[in-house]
Amino acid sequence: MPAYKAPLRDIHFAINDVLDFPGHYASLPGGEDATPDIVSAILDEAAKFAENVLSPLNPIGDREGCRWHDGEVSTPPGFRNAYRQFIDGGWLSLAQAPEWGGQALPPSLGTLVIEMLTSANHAWTMYPMLSLGAISTLQAHGSEEQKRLFLPRLIEGRWSGTMCLTEAHCGSDLGLLRTTAEPQSDGSYRISGSKMFISAGEQDLTENILHLVLARLPGAPAGVKGISLFLVPKVTVRDDGSLDGRNAVSCGSIEHKMGIHGNATCVLNFDGARGYLIGPPNKGMNCMFTFINESRLGVAQQGQGHTEASFQGALRYARERLQMRAPKRTHPDRPADPIIAHPDVRRMLLTQKAFAEGGRLLNAYCARQIDLAHLSDDPEVRRTAGQRLALLTPIAKGFLTEAAQEAASLGIQVLGGHGFIREWGMEQIARDARITAIYEGTNGIQGIDLLGRKVLDADGGLLEAFTGEIEAFCDAQQHRLGEFIGPLRLQVRQWLTLSRQIGDAVRQDPDEVGAAAVDFLMYSGYTVLAYLWALSAVTAQAHLDEGCDDTGFYRAKLQTARFYFQRLLPRTLSLVASVNAGAQSLMAMDEADFAI
Amino acid sequence: MPAYKAPLRDIHFAINDVLDFPGHYASLPGGEDATPDIVSAILDEAAKFAENVLSPLNPIGDREGCRWHDGEVSTPPGFRNAYRQFIDGGWLSLAQAPEWGGQALPPSLGTLVIEMLTSANHAWTMYPMLSLGAISTLQAHGSEEQKRLFLPRLIEGRWSGTMCLTEAHCGSDLGLLRTTAEPQSDGSYRISGSKMFISAGEQDLTENILHLVLARLPGAPAGVKGISLFLVPKVTVRDDGSLDGRNAVSCGSIEHKMGIHGNATCVLNFDGARGYLIGPPNKGMNCMFTFINESRLGVAQQGQGHTEASFQGALRYARERLQMRAPKRTHPDRPADPIIAHPDVRRMLLTQKAFAEGGRLLNAYCARQIDLAHLSDDPEVRRTAGQRLALLTPIAKGFLTEAAQEAASLGIQVLGGHGFIREWGMEQIARDARITAIYEGTNGIQGIDLLGRKVLDADGGLLEAFTGEIEAFCDAQQHRLGEFIGPLRLQVRQWLTLSRQIGDAVRQDPDEVGAAAVDFLMYSGYTVLAYLWALSAVTAQAHLDEGCDDTGFYRAKLQTARFYFQRLLPRTLSLVASVNAGAQSLMAMDEADFAI
Repeated sequence: MPAYKAPLRDIHFAINDVLDFPGHYASLPGGEDATPDIVSAILDEAAKFAENVLSPLNPIGDREGCRWHDGEVSTPPGFRNAYRQFIDGGWLSLAQAPEWGGQALPPSLGTLVIEMLTSANHAWTMYPMLSLGAISTLQAHGSEEQKRLFLPRLIEGRWSGTMCLTEAHCGSDLGLLRTTAEPQSDGSYRISGSKMFISAGEQDLTENILHLVLARLPGAPAGVKGISLFLVPKVTVRDDGSLDGRNAVSCGSIEHKMGIHGNATCVLNFDGARGYLIGPPNKGMNCMFTFINESRLGVAQQGQGHTEASFQGALRYARERLQMRAPKRTHPDRPADPIIAHPDVRRMLLTQKAFAEGGRLLNAYCARQIDLAHLSDDPEVRRTAGQRLALLTPIAKGFLTEAAQEAASLGIQVLGGHGFIREWGMEQIARDARITAIYEGTNGIQGIDLLGRKVLDADGGLLEAFTGEIEAFCDAQQHRLGEFIGPLRLQVRQWLTLSRQIGDAVRQDPDEVGAAAVDFLMYSGYTVLAYLWALSAVTAQAHLDEGCDDTGFYRAKLQTARFYFQRLLPRTLSLVASVNAGAQSLMAMDEADFAI
Repeated sequence: MPAYKAPLRDIHFAINDVLDFPGHYASLPGGEDATPDIVSAILDEAAKFAENVLSPLNPIGDREGCRWHDGEVSTPPGFRNAYRQFIDGGWLSLAQAPEWGGQALPPSLGTLVIEMLTSANHAWTMYPMLSLGAISTLQAHGSEEQKRLFLPRLIEGRWSGTMCLTEAHCGSDLGLLRTTAEPQSDGSYRISGSKMFISAGEQDLTENILHLVLARLPGAPAGVKGISLFLVPKVTVRDDGSLDGRNAVSCGSIEHKMGIHGNATCVLNFDGARGYLIGPPNKGMNCMFTFINESRLGVAQQGQGHTEASFQGALRYARERLQMRAPKRTHPDRPADPIIAHPDVRRMLLTQKAFAEGGRLLNAYCARQIDLAHLSDDPEVRRTAGQRLALLTPIAKGFLTEAAQEAASLGIQVLGGHGFIREWGMEQIARDARITAIYEGTNGIQGIDLLGRKVLDADGGLLEAFTGEIEAFCDAQQHRLGEFIGPLRLQVRQWLTLSRQIGDAVRQDPDEVGAAAVDFLMYSGYTVLAYLWALSAVTAQAHLDEGCDDTGFYRAKLQTARFYFQRLLPRTLSLVASVNAGAQSLMAMDEADFAI
């Protein structure tokens, strides 16, 4: 397994040099504790935990997997111990509310930590990530009594959370769900139904699990407008917070999966289980979207984390493996040159590097917006940040997980035959990463969310607000680094034009949304990364102009930006052509004629 | 597991409608037995074997894998029985020389059969495929005595073959290999060394295994010019062909791999094993290239086979799975529409379909060239076919295996969460397919072979001969189907221009070959498939114009061709831009600055 090394140097570049987190934290109500020294110390400690505790467990979790026996699930050897260390270290409570035991640091700090954990061990990190989503959902939609009863234990990490949406006949289409909730005289509900694909749905890490479950009340309207959200504890909880007996929810089986073997993916059977309504009746989808949106950004981090991990493994191998003479031999004293001397190997490594570092910036950019949306005392700032997040969430989720597929596959390819062998760990990255393009809404769903809801339904307002920011950046830079600023400006204008063209086409034919969705999503992702790579280049150039020490690092930033603009951004040429082909190219064929 | 259904209708379209195999066979010396009725009967029987015997064993092979114990390897349950049926059915001897027990049918017929077998069960099919490569190599380079001793048993299938190239320190770079061969007084050699990644290197299917091994003679020149080819039997063979005792070659271990679990990937230790020199001393690479080139075309078939299998699984699911209303609802009587009604699902299915059917034509086109290169009585035809094959082999291997990665991933994506679950079989396809981009020369190696050796070293002659054929086709069609012929003509001219531009750049900087290689390979693949899709469209239109019965099939061909030209071929826009970025975009960064 490639040993994970937390990329602290680049994380600091992202948050300190490019995105000015120190200034951001200083101006954020409640952010004053997050001084650069504190942030740096927290990142150092998280890096150690990721490198020394989680990374060694990653191949073990893959090999051993989770085991189901009679409704109970054992996590892989070492997972419990790591979880205990994580909780004892206070990592779960980092960015949580102090009134429930949290440390009240800005949420973005949690994001920075999660990148490292998920790079080191995706399957393990899903357990606390689901708890974090449950905490946010309860914070936003729970009653005071519910918060008092559930949040302290969740934040402490003694209890965990899950999200229970999917049923056998409904994945993307939650309107079809059948799980029911019967009101009881004591104000609770009896939940009945079967949920599947429930990540972390059963485990041996915590003494209780709080399932957040979508279900229908009697007489509820059909479709998504008749869905309510319930909290169903695995072990029922007395009013004083102490544990009572087992609730009528059980894990019927766990899935055999392509990857993330260390995380139990469960069928959960609710047989009249006692539950509590969270938020208003029939508003369950609204409430659950707090969880879903946070999870989508979490999946973006997983995608970026895999890209980073695969890059590290490939780079290490490419420096050590001697094979053939490069056109310009670099090591004449050795029997062959290291393969990093070969142009095609560099093409693969630079693609991974550009996605890893660009993706890190995108996640950090989003994390900054989360801080603002939650903590700013200016309602206009909160609103703007919320809109920016709404636009960027499907882009980050969709684009960074597609980039992860490519990066993980390139990581295998750099290793050649060894990439296909389990012990080298590169193929595990590809298997684990594969789910990120699927769960929390497939990337097809992300594309439709972006193009349909976030761009067209908003009449382009959210998009124009963001492109306005990019244009302002270009204006401010107009006499510098024209190799990036010029193409970026064109790219952004084409983004707007493309969205308007699609909007026009949709008025003629509603199939045009779905026909353009994924290509538009990918176009958007490449464009957003172009902005962030231009920002990086400008920042790096400024450091070089000032005569910094670390010239190699900043030069590499400029070179990677150049690679990105010259070799990856042109992929949008093809995406535009594909969008322009329109729905007819997809819909003309009779279903029967697809024939085998 | 998706049950495999042999695509006989489309195979017949490829060979009968588009590529005129009946005329081809009739004009081929020795091809007269391959009448349309015989060919059809053979394909029908092969389809049954693939569907009924191999396909059900595919998930078993993945789950159970091969087992190593004390040097012996057990293949998964059922593999032996299937192999026995295969041999008894005479499948291995189909296209082999009658003087050694073969049935003397044209080699292309074997290719058509292999597509079905490998689609149904890649891991199993590798065992006979390696024997076929060994047979060809012995046919081409063995002495009469060696042929007499080894070919009949190989062709019968009682013995099998392997190719032993890789050593721990050399994969792509065979010049580094260290295995030695010591001449003995009786004319044999003692082979010593360790080989790894030897597919089918040990198994329980055959009573003997003939290893074709690259090794160095004493005093041989350094590098690839000092490599010779040896045949090393697992069990030594007496002069009368009967088996003697075990030779000093043993399987030290088998690998744990991402996929193709049913095929044993072995470390083979040669401890002074008795071997026979095949071909002249120090010409081992030349001789082995018979095996390598045949294997590369075999890998192209594996890639295409996976694309077809994944398409079948995704299509079946997309027709059955009800989820959400399509913009234009297709099944108002049901709770939701089948997902094939959604444009984005169609985008994925059509991409698979275009690659599967286009790839089938490319493999059949290559197979036709093999027939001509081997069997034509006109030396000029043999020469031309050989050159065409030389050009197309890296394109077919590289492009069809890259397409397989995409198609297999799309197959998972169409199934959503179920795509990630083992029981559905879609993720096995992706895992099995992953090796095809790596073995028999990574696709990076294929790119350099294509651009460096086949295009630039030949001063564009091989490429121009092929583009001449395409231009002639365009000329003949110039007043019909302009939507395909116009873009195809532009595409082909740009192919030539691009190759000349790269040639000019290489004269300035030798790094430009590797810097452009994979992009040029992919450009070439998209262009070749455009030609074959245009051929398909013209053929389909002709049938429709004649008033055929099967209008849905031919209409779908035209629609798939349109999809290909409008949505996939434009990817070459990005590839051209990436090539134009040149080597500087890859080589500028100091190795040290890639830093983690």
